[in-house]
Amino acid sequence: MTTNAAPPETKDGHTDSSDRVGTAVSIDCKSLFEDPTFVHQPTSRPAVSFSDRVRRSEKPPISYLMEQGLANPNVISLAAGFVDNASLPVDEVRQAATTILADRDTALAALQYGTTDGYPELRRQIVEQIARLDERTPSDLGLDPQRVIVGTGSQQLLYLVGEVLLDPGDIVLLGVPGYFVYMGALESFGARIVPIRTDEEGLDPEAVEAALEAIDAEGNLERVKFIYDVSYFNNPTGLTLSEPRKRALVEIAQRWSKRHRIVVVEDAAYRELRYRGSDLPSMLRFDPDGQTVLYAGTFSKPFSPGMKTGYVIVPTEFREPLINQKGHEDFGTSNLNQHLLAELMRSGAYQSHLKTLRDVYREKMRVTIETLEAELRPVRERVSWTSPEGGLYVWLTLPEEILTSRGSPFFEDCLKEGMLYVPAEFFYPRSATDVPHHCLRLSFGVPPLDRVREGVRRLARVVLRHLG
Amino acid sequence: MTTNAAPPETKDGHTDSSDRVGTAVSIDCKSLFEDPTFVHQPTSRPAVSFSDRVRRSEKPPISYLMEQGLANPNVISLAAGFVDNASLPVDEVRQAATTILADRDTALAALQYGTTDGYPELRRQIVEQIARLDERTPSDLGLDPQRVIVGTGSQQLLYLVGEVLLDPGDIVLLGVPGYFVYMGALESFGARIVPIRTDEEGLDPEAVEAALEAIDAEGNLERVKFIYDVSYFNNPTGLTLSEPRKRALVEIAQRWSKRHRIVVVEDAAYRELRYRGSDLPSMLRFDPDGQTVLYAGTFSKPFSPGMKTGYVIVPTEFREPLINQKGHEDFGTSNLNQHLLAELMRSGAYQSHLKTLRDVYREKMRVTIETLEAELRPVRERVSWTSPEGGLYVWLTLPEEILTSRGSPFFEDCLKEGMLYVPAEFFYPRSATDVPHHCLRLSFGVPPLDRVREGVRRLARVVLRHLG
Repeated sequence: MTTNAAPPETKDGHTDSSDRVGTAVSIDCKSLFEDPTFVHQPTSRPAVSFSDRVRRSEKPPISYLMEQGLANPNVISLAAGFVDNASLPVDEVRQAATTILADRDTALAALQYGTTDGYPELRRQIVEQIARLDERTPSDLGLDPQRVIVGTGSQQLLYLVGEVLLDPGDIVLLGVPGYFVYMGALESFGARIVPIRTDEEGLDPEAVEAALEAIDAEGNLERVKFIYDVSYFNNPTGLTLSEPRKRALVEIAQRWSKRHRIVVVEDAAYRELRYRGSDLPSMLRFDPDGQTVLYAGTFSKPFSPGMKTGYVIVPTEFREPLINQKGHEDFGTSNLNQHLLAELMRSGAYQSHLKTLRDVYREKMRVTIETLEAELRPVRERVSWTSPEGGLYVWLTLPEEILTSRGSPFFEDCLKEGMLYVPAEFFYPRSATDVPHHCLRLSFGVPPLDRVREGVRRLARVVLRHLG
Repeated sequence: MTTNAAPPETKDGHTDSSDRVGTAVSIDCKSLFEDPTFVHQPTSRPAVSFSDRVRRSEKPPISYLMEQGLANPNVISLAAGFVDNASLPVDEVRQAATTILADRDTALAALQYGTTDGYPELRRQIVEQIARLDERTPSDLGLDPQRVIVGTGSQQLLYLVGEVLLDPGDIVLLGVPGYFVYMGALESFGARIVPIRTDEEGLDPEAVEAALEAIDAEGNLERVKFIYDVSYFNNPTGLTLSEPRKRALVEIAQRWSKRHRIVVVEDAAYRELRYRGSDLPSMLRFDPDGQTVLYAGTFSKPFSPGMKTGYVIVPTEFREPLINQKGHEDFGTSNLNQHLLAELMRSGAYQSHLKTLRDVYREKMRVTIETLEAELRPVRERVSWTSPEGGLYVWLTLPEEILTSRGSPFFEDCLKEGMLYVPAEFFYPRSATDVPHHCLRLSFGVPPLDRVREGVRRLARVVLRHLG
């Protein structure tokens, strides 16, 4: 039975079912039923012809790791980028739910439709919170709630930014290794991802400048739409974009924008998860006229992913296209969750829970790093890792000859030893050519402290064996 | 200052900023500052070049009505398709929140990330609920929770269905007058909407057949992707697709699918809001092999829009593309809301609240219809309206010479009299040529009963004046 296979594509990319009509008519049912491999198909129809976006999409690579985890239940997963379970804000959310649902007026407002751009009080609180973090007043930063759009996690807003900016062939500059979920979305748009190198100080502005010059030289400057970076405790390296580099990146975007508008998307998902050192200013600080920086934040990492709420602060010019697009997609994110979050910020429960959360993760980060240091002492010259000031990730670099890729002997040995990590290749776009196949990401978000320690020990045993 | 205007488009649809570079350099700042109309612009930059989707999108037409409502605060709006406020399920949600958040394990599960396709227990409950409505077992209907995907309202799922099926130029057959939010989304995809006539029994299968034949004759059959219909108490007419027509539509899609796969998207948003008569089977009943019908439902209309949760039941073939696409967009809808809804269905609170809600809307529908009958008795021969068995809408038809369009004398007189409706033109695609400009939609969802009555009276006074 081949009649359910994808139909051949014709030159214009559309499917051609003409031969299939013949097939459907000429099936010899008798011989099919005599074929022991034949499974009854109620009808023989051509396959559904999906859109170009589907053709450009792949199954998210992370599903492979999830399947590995499921198939090996005793494995300690230091792979998932999810959050600590035990510290989720149960009491805080219960209290906020009680407050909102006990009063009939606030309850009715929360259970009714909201507006597409989000609950005004929450947008006001978000502006206040960013200004507090940036140690400026909202007006110093040129912020007001009209520039904020609330969505179903910051992922939805990053997706919407892609939707309103990108046609197939358009270009996004993105630091690598980088956030793979967004790379998948960008690839589904048909965007060309130009990978930019990162180092201890994050995305390298000189590399951005060089890339723009090269793109300009090939005549494609006008296809460049934005520069994307997870600027605080990047996923997967845990490294942070330094203040001088932030300034430089905004300046580069502004300078090139005199010819062709390029914006910078600062993904600040992990900003509030800082365990030591002082907060750095956001790029909004270097964009006083508010035309260059889009700043995306979330309540998933610093509070509760189950409430699935995030936001983006945008130049005024983006407001209408983004809201129209969100109007098509869902015309508004859960109003109930937005009212809960506004109440949690108003009461201070959000801020105080953040302190608890920082203590939890600080300890997990410490255990991760200390266990690496203790267990890998014998090979300390040949293995290195980042030691981030915040976030959920540590990036480990092995000698070049040790491949960490899925299915590699090292990967399989880790699985056998009972631990799972994410190989470096996941954090590079499909088009990337120089993937450092000897690196890997560790995430201590989900497992409790003793499982983090044990997971890192298992990894270390495999490292020692492969380097022995 | 013209430098912020949209740049001219070149032949290939991309913007050309070459002249703009010159402009930026040649601005005479002195004369600008001497111009009293000049507002300080910190930089002179070309406008952002948005995507083709943005170019294809218009500001949602409904914003015009919302602005009218805001500008005329004493107006009774029978325009918004929102839901009754006083009957929102405050006690039910408070109880479910208490149940879930009082137990640490259930609370942690609800506050953590969920899966992209949705909370399995909720998907199981959804299958049970549809089977109950269809008076069949899930297996009779070929349903299982793997065929269900949960999203941020059914709108998101309808959008995703469009995403995975439509490239620019692809064709959707859609009953008119029809749901304008989805038409806006389809237009943003660049889809060609082929309007299909509807009558008292809903979408006309003969018209669908004729449209397919015409499209086939022009050689475009392979661009046809799906037929979309709000099958229960349609928005805006309130009319329901009859059982024989449902059967016929599925049969038409199946027959044409032998050559080129066409699916039917049944939007059942209002199904559970039936105030008299018996429920009709869903199209799933006529699709035993589960390859033809996508069935979309929501918790917004029958329960609470603030929880912004909906679902779609799909042929197995759609599962992976839809989940991948949802993975790009948000990798999962609020888990907290999904856990609340699963608890609400488990406890029976969802089902019992539905009874209350039906009583509330039955009364509003009765008052709407009775007021129309009483007030318009003198012109009964010249004005007609639907008398739906459920839903939130009544469709009113005036004599052809009375235009109801935005800005028409009739529209303006209604505003002056203090009521707002939605003109017929909103429910037709931009491409439609034969819009019945003498029709309008009334919605009694939001206002309390006495305001519904008064709103209809105000409308009737204007009708009498214009027909007098």
